Amino acid sequence: MTNRRANFINMVKHLADVPEKNVEREINLTKESPYRQGYHVESESGSLGDPNGFSYFNHQYHLFYQWSPLAFSQTPHYTQHGWKHLVSKNLVDWQDLGAGIESDTVLDKHGTYSGSALPVGDQLFLMYTGNTWTNTESEDDWHRVPYQVGAMMDKDNHVEKWMQPLLTGPLEGYTGHFRDPKIFKKNDEYYAVLGIQRENLTGSALLVKSSDLHDWQIVGEVKAKHEDFGYMWECPDYYELDNHGVLEFCPQGLESQGNKFKNIYQNGYLIGQKMNLKSGEFNCGHFHELDKGFDFYAMQTMRDTKGRKILMAWMGLPEIKYPTEKYHYTGCMIFPRELHVKNGLIVQKPVDEIKDLYQEEYDSELTLDEKLVEIKAEENNRRDIKLELDCSQAYDTVLDLFANEDNTQHLRLIFNHKKQEFIVNRSNCGIAIAETYGVERSCHLNLDQKIIVRILQDTSSAEIFLNDGQDVFSMRVFTAKDNHRIFASSHNGSAKLRAEIHQLRNRR
Amino acid sequence: MTNRRANFINMVKHLADVPEKNVEREINLTKESPYRQGYHVESESGSLGDPNGFSYFNHQYHLFYQWSPLAFSQTPHYTQHGWKHLVSKNLVDWQDLGAGIESDTVLDKHGTYSGSALPVGDQLFLMYTGNTWTNTESEDDWHRVPYQVGAMMDKDNHVEKWMQPLLTGPLEGYTGHFRDPKIFKKNDEYYAVLGIQRENLTGSALLVKSSDLHDWQIVGEVKAKHEDFGYMWECPDYYELDNHGVLEFCPQGLESQGNKFKNIYQNGYLIGQKMNLKSGEFNCGHFHELDKGFDFYAMQTMRDTKGRKILMAWMGLPEIKYPTEKYHYTGCMIFPRELHVKNGLIVQKPVDEIKDLYQEEYDSELTLDEKLVEIKAEENNRRDIKLELDCSQAYDTVLDLFANEDNTQHLRLIFNHKKQEFIVNRSNCGIAIAETYGVERSCHLNLDQKIIVRILQDTSSAEIFLNDGQDVFSMRVFTAKDNHRIFASSHNGSAKLRAEIHQLRNRR
Repeated sequence: MTNRRANFINMVKHLADVPEKNVEREINLTKESPYRQGYHVESESGSLGDPNGFSYFNHQYHLFYQWSPLAFSQTPHYTQHGWKHLVSKNLVDWQDLGAGIESDTVLDKHGTYSGSALPVGDQLFLMYTGNTWTNTESEDDWHRVPYQVGAMMDKDNHVEKWMQPLLTGPLEGYTGHFRDPKIFKKNDEYYAVLGIQRENLTGSALLVKSSDLHDWQIVGEVKAKHEDFGYMWECPDYYELDNHGVLEFCPQGLESQGNKFKNIYQNGYLIGQKMNLKSGEFNCGHFHELDKGFDFYAMQTMRDTKGRKILMAWMGLPEIKYPTEKYHYTGCMIFPRELHVKNGLIVQKPVDEIKDLYQEEYDSELTLDEKLVEIKAEENNRRDIKLELDCSQAYDTVLDLFANEDNTQHLRLIFNHKKQEFIVNRSNCGIAIAETYGVERSCHLNLDQKIIVRILQDTSSAEIFLNDGQDVFSMRVFTAKDNHRIFASSHNGSAKLRAEIHQLRNRR
Repeated sequence: MTNRRANFINMVKHLADVPEKNVEREINLTKESPYRQGYHVESESGSLGDPNGFSYFNHQYHLFYQWSPLAFSQTPHYTQHGWKHLVSKNLVDWQDLGAGIESDTVLDKHGTYSGSALPVGDQLFLMYTGNTWTNTESEDDWHRVPYQVGAMMDKDNHVEKWMQPLLTGPLEGYTGHFRDPKIFKKNDEYYAVLGIQRENLTGSALLVKSSDLHDWQIVGEVKAKHEDFGYMWECPDYYELDNHGVLEFCPQGLESQGNKFKNIYQNGYLIGQKMNLKSGEFNCGHFHELDKGFDFYAMQTMRDTKGRKILMAWMGLPEIKYPTEKYHYTGCMIFPRELHVKNGLIVQKPVDEIKDLYQEEYDSELTLDEKLVEIKAEENNRRDIKLELDCSQAYDTVLDLFANEDNTQHLRLIFNHKKQEFIVNRSNCGIAIAETYGVERSCHLNLDQKIIVRILQDTSSAEIFLNDGQDVFSMRVFTAKDNHRIFASSHNGSAKLRAEIHQLRNRR
């Protein structure tokens, strides 16, 4: 509790209250980082976390995110927390509008936590969790009081907070862990799902409804097969897609199970019939990991005017130390993904607008064997890589990204035909991250047949899509700038590889 | 097939037929290896594979193993294959008796494959697979004819082979993959289990019986739940222990399943009620991995006169390249383990005779935190390490073995309390081995409570026993000689560690 207390001693309500030179000092240090991304959204300083209020409004995409630009500031340390606000016409180039919401009212004074947005009339309705603590003068007898807060943003991006909380926690039978409202509309009613912790310290999702956005009633917990699953569910998101109901959430407190649930906190979804919004009944199957990589959390979806369901997420995790902290920033977003349902599971692919980033193209067609082959590309890691791989005639095929000249360092992708397994190995790839949670991630993969692999590489990340996004692995990689080579080989037999590599420009 | 053919061009029946200087050249090169084990059995040159004929006879333990002392010889290359023979009074110090069986008859001319031994009267009965090929003049139309061969060894260790095969393959309905007889006696009848491949290319174990060791009848396949499991079962071993029936075997062709079955070939067992030896009916549960480490295969058990069930195994795998090949040898044995049944599962511990190897003892009692602590021991890796670890108050605890001075290289053991998982990570530990099969092995481990860990370290191996041998991980490690340090730390909380380390002498 003492950390929390120390954190709030220097809390300021508005970034504008901090001397400009202190803000700029952070930004200038962050600029020095060799790990700055080319086309992924990241913060210009401090910490970036959950995406919030992801929406389409006023002819543009809006993305907010959990933002503490001074999180790593020192002498003096300032704590300032809120939502960063970005807008985009194409999901690729983003205009930075600075602070979108700040923690400046009695309802959110200790943190403007996560939430969502929905266009209502000619405004954008924002719904988020205001975090507050009572009894803060005590050493360790603090009590968390979460408010679900409403606000309206107009076309000039001016936000008006509602001073009457929509819901106040803790609710009876639950603890103060009650947050992350995701709003949606169906049949002229508004609904939201929120993460909540029961008094018996198990996690759940709560469904609430309203007809006017002011007066909210509790429908009840989402009644899914997996309601007893972890000690807290964060960032739930319910939506309907391709005639299915989907509940995404981030359970905390899952033990590892084989090659599943290896990260400190998890992400995933339940899929089934559409939810009964009167009762919260949700007839669904097992919990599936949405992203099986090392760094992925707090995903949030939106539906755009083209009818696409688009996913955004934090390519990072709470409580994990990243080497960018040395440069006083941490976290980035994934590249936005379009979602569909295929064979009863979510499949993901980068939104087509990525083509706006395309520059030079490099095509290769190779027969692989024991001899290491370098695959031709430009000398930087900003790439959209599309591969067709047939390794059915070899024990395994290895693809090394972020490789140095003699390939002693690399992010290693292993397609093991003999074990019908895909493994990504981050152990030999620059600065170690979260090693105690393992250096490999893996999944079953049928390699008797040709497979399609797509990889979005950036300066310090890789998002790997297997078989049109049936399995996705996202991860950060902090390696030397010169490590931009791609090598491939196969063992105990030969493999065929076609590679189409598009180098990508920086985002604007 | 061409490799096989080339291999037999220079085949010699007896090691004694090879010029002594060629044999010695191999031995001298092997001696130069920095990876030579201190107390684990390994070959003085060439390849060591499956343990064979493990038994107690004539007041001593007998261990044979698959042996090709000239396997890596060059200009000229000789192929000579058979069983090496060792004897021991204490399972710790072994006398090398040289070639035990060689491939010198029509029944075993292309290889004296694996088998077992049983004392009969005042002789030791040996039962093994003689491998032969027909049509060897053709380029690629060879046919495998496996013979199950009997032989008697007297008290002078003289082996007399029986020239009438006990069984001749392929049997009707099966392929030529029919090998590895493990003999046992019950109610005055002799039985053996053998690995066999059905014509539909699935693996099984065949039960056969005899009253006189000469005339063998086929009882039938072992009828277990898991009879459809892989394309071949090698080295089956049936025994009764603590009132259970146990069938150990090495299935080939299993796909990875989460953190299970990661190695190129597997090892494990079925356990249940005692087998019905009239019908082969075996009422048992699921298949369990016996050893979850990187390097373990072809295990074989024996019962000694003290009534102990003792396990021997090859700490290596077929088709995997080891860096010792540079020194023209490969493979070693595990340190023998005593087996018991606990909670319906096999538990394993090093035989007590390891105490014969004990030299200096180092005891430590430490409170671990973020700061790396070195645990005191001698400057060599021959050790029996006993640990008591309480990491219930930390996210995780890390133990690094084979570490260099600044701990940038190590074999890393991770006890992740938050994920209730044990991980051993070999990625940063000298020369890489079988990386395409993954660099981590892991299992579920309840870390809310104190755990007992035992580790047998040798120059180039580690055998890790969790909770009195409920989970065991064996592996080879090829690191620089100076990497003999042990470090520990814990993260996000503190852990308590008691270490009792016995340095071990070399075996004689």
